Amino acid sequence: MSERQKWYGWGSEDKTFDLARRPAFWPYLKEKLGIDPKLKTPPVALESLRLPPLAIPSKLTDKLEAIVGSNSIRDDDYARITHSTGKSYFDLIRIRRGIIDNPPDLVVYPETITQIAEVLKIAAENKISITPFGGGTSVVGGVEPMRAKNHSASISLDMSRMNKMIELDEKSLLATFEAGIRGPSLEGHLQKRGYTLGHFPQSFEYSTLGGWLATRSAGQQSDRYGKIENMVCSVTMVTPCGIISTPDAPYPAIGPSTKDLIIGSEGLFGVIARARMIIHRLPQVQLYRGILFRDFASGIQAVREIAQARLRPATMRLSDEAETEMAIKMHAESESLFETAVMKAGRWYLRSKGYESSALMILGFEDTTAAAQKGLKTALEIASNYGGINIGSSAGEAWFRTRFEPPYLRDLLLDHAIMVDTLETSTTWNILEHVYRSVKNAIEKAITNFEQSTPPLVLCHISHSYPEGASLYFTFMAKQTPSREAEQWQAVKVAAMDAILAAGAAISHHHGIGRDHLHWAHLQHGKPVIEALSAVKKVLDPEGILNPGKFLT
Amino acid sequence: MSERQKWYGWGSEDKTFDLARRPAFWPYLKEKLGIDPKLKTPPVALESLRLPPLAIPSKLTDKLEAIVGSNSIRDDDYARITHSTGKSYFDLIRIRRGIIDNPPDLVVYPETITQIAEVLKIAAENKISITPFGGGTSVVGGVEPMRAKNHSASISLDMSRMNKMIELDEKSLLATFEAGIRGPSLEGHLQKRGYTLGHFPQSFEYSTLGGWLATRSAGQQSDRYGKIENMVCSVTMVTPCGIISTPDAPYPAIGPSTKDLIIGSEGLFGVIARARMIIHRLPQVQLYRGILFRDFASGIQAVREIAQARLRPATMRLSDEAETEMAIKMHAESESLFETAVMKAGRWYLRSKGYESSALMILGFEDTTAAAQKGLKTALEIASNYGGINIGSSAGEAWFRTRFEPPYLRDLLLDHAIMVDTLETSTTWNILEHVYRSVKNAIEKAITNFEQSTPPLVLCHISHSYPEGASLYFTFMAKQTPSREAEQWQAVKVAAMDAILAAGAAISHHHGIGRDHLHWAHLQHGKPVIEALSAVKKVLDPEGILNPGKFLT
Repeated sequence: MSERQKWYGWGSEDKTFDLARRPAFWPYLKEKLGIDPKLKTPPVALESLRLPPLAIPSKLTDKLEAIVGSNSIRDDDYARITHSTGKSYFDLIRIRRGIIDNPPDLVVYPETITQIAEVLKIAAENKISITPFGGGTSVVGGVEPMRAKNHSASISLDMSRMNKMIELDEKSLLATFEAGIRGPSLEGHLQKRGYTLGHFPQSFEYSTLGGWLATRSAGQQSDRYGKIENMVCSVTMVTPCGIISTPDAPYPAIGPSTKDLIIGSEGLFGVIARARMIIHRLPQVQLYRGILFRDFASGIQAVREIAQARLRPATMRLSDEAETEMAIKMHAESESLFETAVMKAGRWYLRSKGYESSALMILGFEDTTAAAQKGLKTALEIASNYGGINIGSSAGEAWFRTRFEPPYLRDLLLDHAIMVDTLETSTTWNILEHVYRSVKNAIEKAITNFEQSTPPLVLCHISHSYPEGASLYFTFMAKQTPSREAEQWQAVKVAAMDAILAAGAAISHHHGIGRDHLHWAHLQHGKPVIEALSAVKKVLDPEGILNPGKFLT
Repeated sequence: MSERQKWYGWGSEDKTFDLARRPAFWPYLKEKLGIDPKLKTPPVALESLRLPPLAIPSKLTDKLEAIVGSNSIRDDDYARITHSTGKSYFDLIRIRRGIIDNPPDLVVYPETITQIAEVLKIAAENKISITPFGGGTSVVGGVEPMRAKNHSASISLDMSRMNKMIELDEKSLLATFEAGIRGPSLEGHLQKRGYTLGHFPQSFEYSTLGGWLATRSAGQQSDRYGKIENMVCSVTMVTPCGIISTPDAPYPAIGPSTKDLIIGSEGLFGVIARARMIIHRLPQVQLYRGILFRDFASGIQAVREIAQARLRPATMRLSDEAETEMAIKMHAESESLFETAVMKAGRWYLRSKGYESSALMILGFEDTTAAAQKGLKTALEIASNYGGINIGSSAGEAWFRTRFEPPYLRDLLLDHAIMVDTLETSTTWNILEHVYRSVKNAIEKAITNFEQSTPPLVLCHISHSYPEGASLYFTFMAKQTPSREAEQWQAVKVAAMDAILAAGAAISHHHGIGRDHLHWAHLQHGKPVIEALSAVKKVLDPEGILNPGKFLT
């Protein structure tokens, strides 16, 4: 890691979200949320942070140092602070105030599978908790290094030094990587040889292959390339009870899929160390377009039909009316093409149709030139049947160019006492609109009903669609309730998750369980499954050293 | 079940394989295998079969009858015999001689999830073994109702009365079925509404949805529609410890995939009772063609390129030289179009190229007319680059028409003292040809080296291909070694499976583990996985009543 990342926010220290170029955004937000423009809530100074003393005996540190080397072990405050949480809203409101609930006593950086195995052995023998740490971008509390009740200390196992491409098998279109490799490095290896994995989550710049696998991550081009679980030929996980390598062959029929027991295991069973991944030849073209629908409901029909026609666009992202309105307000003056097009088309459309709002779809195809053009043409025809107006490539390309930026904006909002968080689900088409309304209503009501109530802003888009259904991704914002930020957020979260569960949708489609979804994951799986998975954990991690305080613990 | 099935062989009693119309086949086989045409080995008479007395106390039978009703419980000899094995070679050589190692004491036909749960409860309380039975077509010993050591009796749980379509959700393209429904009935429900599941294994006429799911089955059109595990939205399984319903939503990220723990569980964890399946609109056309390659190796290159171009043919089945030769010899005089075309093209091709043999590919596309034509055209161009000659639709259509027939032929071969069995694997492209040669050599050597050695005939085809690899499906034949048929078969099986494991390929791609692959499945998974899965079994089936004597027991 060359660049230094913000300890209190998203990404490297030198990157921020440029609001100056977006003059309409602040006025819009202030009006919507009723915030006081003068109220500033910056993070405390790094120097003011106070950590508890190290709880690990130096004899043990010496033993670990003997395994990984003295350069691969850290116990300084900065390392402890930056490994103490992930990047959820709840994480950030705590750390920005100097609250660090679970700092690790050590950060250990293994470089080999053998080193991982030996570190786990020492930890098991000495009852020390270990939380695997990939890019640290979890938004559900997945990497917070909690300590099990009877454990004396906790270690954050930072996988960033296991970052190599091990093999590129061009005949099988498979590439084997160490699990600590980050998105840009992984794609760098592949793209210079003419290939891509095709996995681009919003966290792409910082998250790792191991983290993607551990959480069942989805990239923004998943409609074409699949979710991470669709990209795996085989995977190796180091557990306290031994190393597991799944059969290295396509679709074996030898009992339950152990690969699918490891993918999504969130560091509970072992440390994902490497994986052999299905890769694609680089597309010849990437064609991205903006399409404007009269409303979210018409757009949903188009998304469903395009997904069921199995046209496999790379991206098909449909914002509801509220999110579309914000996208228009976010327009940068210098990026005139995108937003002016949206605004013009939007205004024209609204005017001509007599509607108050509209719904923006970003539609992208990546393939050979001929196939991408053909797919786009067919999809545009379907969209047009539902009233979708093609507003051209600038809207699509602007989205593509800025698609990793939204997390940077969050830091700015936090500087101004704004609560902002996202949550997501997936469901089948027959109940999708019901799920949408239920969750949106639940969030709005929870914000409105909370003490010192503030106006809610709830946005939603469909990303990741399938013939059988789609993912709904919600963003909610409100004025923070001073000194009760955590309770306020918790109230909204509980209401949203309860609504998702009650509607019969998935507790999460790609964020995972972590710490925050524990309760609902247990309810959704039911007792027999929780007992079965706990039994697996007991076998693979008998001392319970791995990722305590999360699912199954 | 209206028709009566052969107790000693494949399918219903009134269906046989018509060899009379294939005059070249017997002479070819006799020459290859050195068999004596006069040697007949028919099954013993049904009346001569002797079963052990029922080991189940009548009080218990009464209790079960109270649950399912007196019409849903059988203990007559015919029911016990037809539920005593699956349809593997090893099964058939035993039963044809009157050897029935594990007859069930009862056959119970539940009609509801509640009934299944209650039957499991009675069985657990009374330590009675239960083996779920779908269509009974397992070729790896999966449905043989073995009895656990400390158990007093065994029950075959026949799912054939849970055979309804529960819901057709046209909006989500999902259909919910009870697990005991057979292929033709399932497709009947769907096709009359304009849909298809697209799952057509060779056992299609008799096998059930539950059996497909329990074994990770693959259909002959899997290149387009996927394996059964790709078709499931959610599944319900009744376990002795409760009912599990997996989240009914696309691609949830809530820990390990419990769906993939149930799919492939082969009756070890519970009884698969229903599933919500992804369906497709019926294709407008089914275009099937025959293509002749100079040799298997050239054909493999074409298969790989077509799979990696993701053209998604419905079927792409490439026979090696030996299997192609047999296909030509199997030609029916009345089906002049197919075989004459193959023979003509083959002869011409061989003559013109100076080669001794050729490799036949069956290539099929199913889609809208335009898409199928486009896909076929592109695939034919690729095939042509590797010397593939399009021999037209009659070859493809003849294969399609007769694709469920080969198991009927087996009964005829068994009547003539011929050993015939199939086994399959999957592997990645980089080692596929090595796996092919290793397994083929191992089988040939094992047949040749067995006492009273006979000439081996080993055939292979690629079916089920993926961008990363493919499945290899082997058929072997030889003269039976009289009175040592089981040992002879066992010797070949062991050699083949050892070769598959040593080469790093999958123990099975779609037949499953059952009784026959136990040893190698344990080796391929490794100790930590076996212990983890055994722990799951212990939780879900604490008394070990389910499918004893198989994997994990």
